[in-house]
Amino acid sequence: MNEQHIVSAYDRDLEAIQAMIIKMGGLVEAAILDGTKSLVSRDLELAEKVRAGDKVIDDLEEKINEEAARTIALRAPMSKDLRIILSVLKLAGSLERVGDYAKNIAKRTSVLAELRPITGSDATLKRMGRDVQAMLKDTLDAFVARDAELAEDVINRDQDIDQMYNALFREFLTHMMEDPRNITACMHLHFIAKNIERMGDLVTNMAEQVVYVATGSMPEENRPKGDKTSYVTHDEGA
Amino acid sequence: MNEQHIVSAYDRDLEAIQAMIIKMGGLVEAAILDGTKSLVSRDLELAEKVRAGDKVIDDLEEKINEEAARTIALRAPMSKDLRIILSVLKLAGSLERVGDYAKNIAKRTSVLAELRPITGSDATLKRMGRDVQAMLKDTLDAFVARDAELAEDVINRDQDIDQMYNALFREFLTHMMEDPRNITACMHLHFIAKNIERMGDLVTNMAEQVVYVATGSMPEENRPKGDKTSYVTHDEGA
Repeated sequence: MNEQHIVSAYDRDLEAIQAMIIKMGGLVEAAILDGTKSLVSRDLELAEKVRAGDKVIDDLEEKINEEAARTIALRAPMSKDLRIILSVLKLAGSLERVGDYAKNIAKRTSVLAELRPITGSDATLKRMGRDVQAMLKDTLDAFVARDAELAEDVINRDQDIDQMYNALFREFLTHMMEDPRNITACMHLHFIAKNIERMGDLVTNMAEQVVYVATGSMPEENRPKGDKTSYVTHDEGA
Repeated sequence: MNEQHIVSAYDRDLEAIQAMIIKMGGLVEAAILDGTKSLVSRDLELAEKVRAGDKVIDDLEEKINEEAARTIALRAPMSKDLRIILSVLKLAGSLERVGDYAKNIAKRTSVLAELRPITGSDATLKRMGRDVQAMLKDTLDAFVARDAELAEDVINRDQDIDQMYNALFREFLTHMMEDPRNITACMHLHFIAKNIERMGDLVTNMAEQVVYVATGSMPEENRPKGDKTSYVTHDEGA
């Protein structure tokens, strides 16, 4: 009877924390979409909304950290339950960083609005943002459902993001070499592309954490990870 | 008597975990120095050493995570002790990412060795690396000594890193506009500068965590944080 009571109190706590993660995830998803949208449409108002919204995301992470610590102290969960709570802390940390990247993208909107437009990259940037947002959504769904297969699927999709980033990198180099007046805009756009690529890496880390929660072990390290796409030296003859 | 026994077992566990953090920190410090050194001297052998060494750093983080989870489960620490262990998890996570950045810098050594040299930036990159390494060293010392003042000092020094990064960003723009053959090398060097600047941000986050461990509350958010230095649009007339 008493044990029953303890178990359900813990479950309630865990569910409350998970609800906060889902809420935080929804805000970060919106920040990714709005951040890239503000940039592509040079929408300063939307960019400001994303910047202001990051504070709410940061506060939620703080709250999740506190609730997790409180739950651990109060319920002293063992093995699997503890693993879930520690994973939640990691997920919240990654979400906070994805939110930061989205904010940084939005912050460049005002800079890019002053610079000459670069043709062709907007569509790819928008698609990258949309794809990363979908990856994040599936990661959170996989977390709630403890669905390792869906999380593995997310991990595999990161390659597409990397490929799009790689294509953009070459495109920016070409634009810069063709006309030096493109250089500043391309430097900023390149930053943005890299930020989205990094968001993809972070979401992939989150998906790996979900596999860990669902199965008890991390997935095999077979994905082509992180900062490996941009080592092209390109044809230097301008 | 029994309580005495529990307390010291916990203290022993915590000390073991702290020792691992210090070891991990030492490896990351070396990776920062060796990473920037390999780059500046185009030393492919040293670069390979940094790349290979990152695996050891990642494994240490994994081990720290496991030990921390084991200690929480076994000792069920309350309030302050729990705060320290959860902070240790965050510190280990940040260290792992700083190590990743150092590895990424080393990885570009081989690319840069093929490209035309850019005058002037090497000295600044090296200094940035050295300064971030010193910041990290002080952060770890502050953690061990629970020295909030030293940690606050680290937080303030991040501004210098940001200023050096900002100066480099303008320098690279100028080089690229002067001669399109500089573009590819400058793109890579810019990445490296940005990576070091991000390492500075991560170490600053760690120092904030140390203030939290030492005082029980996070420092005031008064530092100029993160990705704010590079919003220059520069004179576009090439």
